[in-house]
Amino acid sequence: MTAAAGVTPVPDWGARIDAARAAMSDLGIESLGVTAGSDLTYLCGYEAMPLERITMFVVGLWGEPVLVVPELEAPRVDDRDGLFEVVTWADGEDSLDICARMLRRAGHPGGPVAIGDRAWAEHLLGLQRRLYHATWVPASDVLRGLRSVKSAAEIALLREAGAAIDAVVETLPSLEWAGRTEAEVAAAIGDEIVAAGHELVNFVIVAAGANAASPHHEPGDKVINAGECVLVDIGGTRKGYCSDTTRVVSIGAPAAEVEAAWDALRAAQERATATVAPGIAAGAVDAAARGVITEAGYGDAFIHRTGHGIGLDAHEDPYIVAGNDEELQPGMCFSIEPGIYLSGRFGLRLEDIVAVTDDGVEVLNRTAHELIVVG
Amino acid sequence: MTAAAGVTPVPDWGARIDAARAAMSDLGIESLGVTAGSDLTYLCGYEAMPLERITMFVVGLWGEPVLVVPELEAPRVDDRDGLFEVVTWADGEDSLDICARMLRRAGHPGGPVAIGDRAWAEHLLGLQRRLYHATWVPASDVLRGLRSVKSAAEIALLREAGAAIDAVVETLPSLEWAGRTEAEVAAAIGDEIVAAGHELVNFVIVAAGANAASPHHEPGDKVINAGECVLVDIGGTRKGYCSDTTRVVSIGAPAAEVEAAWDALRAAQERATATVAPGIAAGAVDAAARGVITEAGYGDAFIHRTGHGIGLDAHEDPYIVAGNDEELQPGMCFSIEPGIYLSGRFGLRLEDIVAVTDDGVEVLNRTAHELIVVG
Repeated sequence: MTAAAGVTPVPDWGARIDAARAAMSDLGIESLGVTAGSDLTYLCGYEAMPLERITMFVVGLWGEPVLVVPELEAPRVDDRDGLFEVVTWADGEDSLDICARMLRRAGHPGGPVAIGDRAWAEHLLGLQRRLYHATWVPASDVLRGLRSVKSAAEIALLREAGAAIDAVVETLPSLEWAGRTEAEVAAAIGDEIVAAGHELVNFVIVAAGANAASPHHEPGDKVINAGECVLVDIGGTRKGYCSDTTRVVSIGAPAAEVEAAWDALRAAQERATATVAPGIAAGAVDAAARGVITEAGYGDAFIHRTGHGIGLDAHEDPYIVAGNDEELQPGMCFSIEPGIYLSGRFGLRLEDIVAVTDDGVEVLNRTAHELIVVG
Repeated sequence: MTAAAGVTPVPDWGARIDAARAAMSDLGIESLGVTAGSDLTYLCGYEAMPLERITMFVVGLWGEPVLVVPELEAPRVDDRDGLFEVVTWADGEDSLDICARMLRRAGHPGGPVAIGDRAWAEHLLGLQRRLYHATWVPASDVLRGLRSVKSAAEIALLREAGAAIDAVVETLPSLEWAGRTEAEVAAAIGDEIVAAGHELVNFVIVAAGANAASPHHEPGDKVINAGECVLVDIGGTRKGYCSDTTRVVSIGAPAAEVEAAWDALRAAQERATATVAPGIAAGAVDAAARGVITEAGYGDAFIHRTGHGIGLDAHEDPYIVAGNDEELQPGMCFSIEPGIYLSGRFGLRLEDIVAVTDDGVEVLNRTAHELIVVG
């Protein structure tokens, strides 16, 4: 949770706020309020506690930005050398009244207000009651373009996070597999994620045998058996930025049907990666992966999009999904993770994070694309 | 995350849905939609993934409840023997259109809709665009009364969670303190929280010396020194229910000023606990604690409310705060955690979870109220 403090070099918060204001001006949005989460961290570096006491960073087209924060959390705030005003509220005070006042102060009474996408509905409803003349839009209208195109410093952090999670993948062959439960192996991998320099373990999917046909399976009491494949999808947060990679471990030599599906999956993942370049539509990357898998006869078994953006959040814009016409730009970072899920039998996924470069793609995960055969 | 499966006995989901409908009927609310989180788990037992793909459980005054779920997560769903219909959506489909259709199907087009308090603003804004005739209220209007009064089975689970976190407190004297950083001690305590049977570590506050004057301090690189007090506020989730307790460790004999403040704090915590009974206002419990602390001369140093409800969420209704006239009822469970924070010097907090009984109070944390003196 103290990750932002370790980010090197320190982001230019003022420049980010100015960029947000430029986007607001383009869109005719007068006032922006973001609550605990990555939008707030992105704009001012503060990592608010995601609890019921509201924290809101308010940016208007003019005037000083304001951080509204619970009094008991005020000692945690660094105002970045006076970049923003800090307004505290005490338990028992009407915190939404204070937030509403700051949002109104930052714009005209009936003007458009952008509210953080992941703000709580309870808070939005309370603000809508208090600013009933305002129109409301999601803050991503303002921030999507800024956050989805990473700076060189941000890409360097994602590269470091990628190397850290790759180091965890390199430990997989030396773990014990057969005879342990998914949950036991997941706990061991969680320890490795921390040991590799992540502050936070975001998720550890360990899905053995037929369980892997459920893409978001929770590791449980199932004992891993020889002859099974185990899907391992892992990610954490390092210096504030997320890692995410998926590999498959085969306990003993894989069955022929698994090898055939893996070959198709690997070809799809590599074809999609080779498609990435500035100006290409996000949906075209999905189509590239899907085309290879469909041609190999597994089209119905690839039941999700090809990828998601990554950065301060584990999942963020851009989404690599059919129908997304958004053009890729240098600096965008996202996963490429096609999968093949055969109900009752097995499931496979292969995932790397990539960054769009000026003329193509850089792959931020570097471990081999083979099935990892153990035991 | 698999906690609900371990809850014994299995809750009567049908009875909970019926109770929600009764509350909706009383309030004139025709349609209720709750997203990933504890409201959803409470109503149907499903623990949805808190990611950008929306999951929504829709309950109308009539008809079958519906769980709208991403296709790739559908294998994780248990429909409780047909208690509800499962509607899936695939990546690329308009998931909010589907949710809006289900909410409308469950009520009249312009009728009132209750939306989960912690639903994402982005999702609420999308639903408001699609159901622009509807009026919107927070789901807590419907669910607060149900969730804040725990059943005997739920209290048993909170009692078990309390015993588990107490077992962690009992290990504190045997940990190494002086010379280690807050973060190192916090990591060791996190391991103990898991070892004590929690599925999840929700938070570990370890705040040494003057750092403890910041109530929500994040454990950092500060080395713990002899002569300092260390505030330890810890909680996890066990079988789906949360634990939460705070004690203070003194490295060597405490200074006289610390002892004096602790005596006042302990008296305040015990006075507030003795105040708890059915029919007492929540705010009166806060006043009891605050009165003792103010009388002892530390009134300005107690900068937060006295407590918060606890259950499936670490913080939930009822809040023990000045101005809350809500009357306590048997089955309500909450923290009593006054604090004294002296900037630049030290901070103290003493916290137990209590349950309101038919004629008074049961304290669910049982460790001693003395400062824990080590080294």
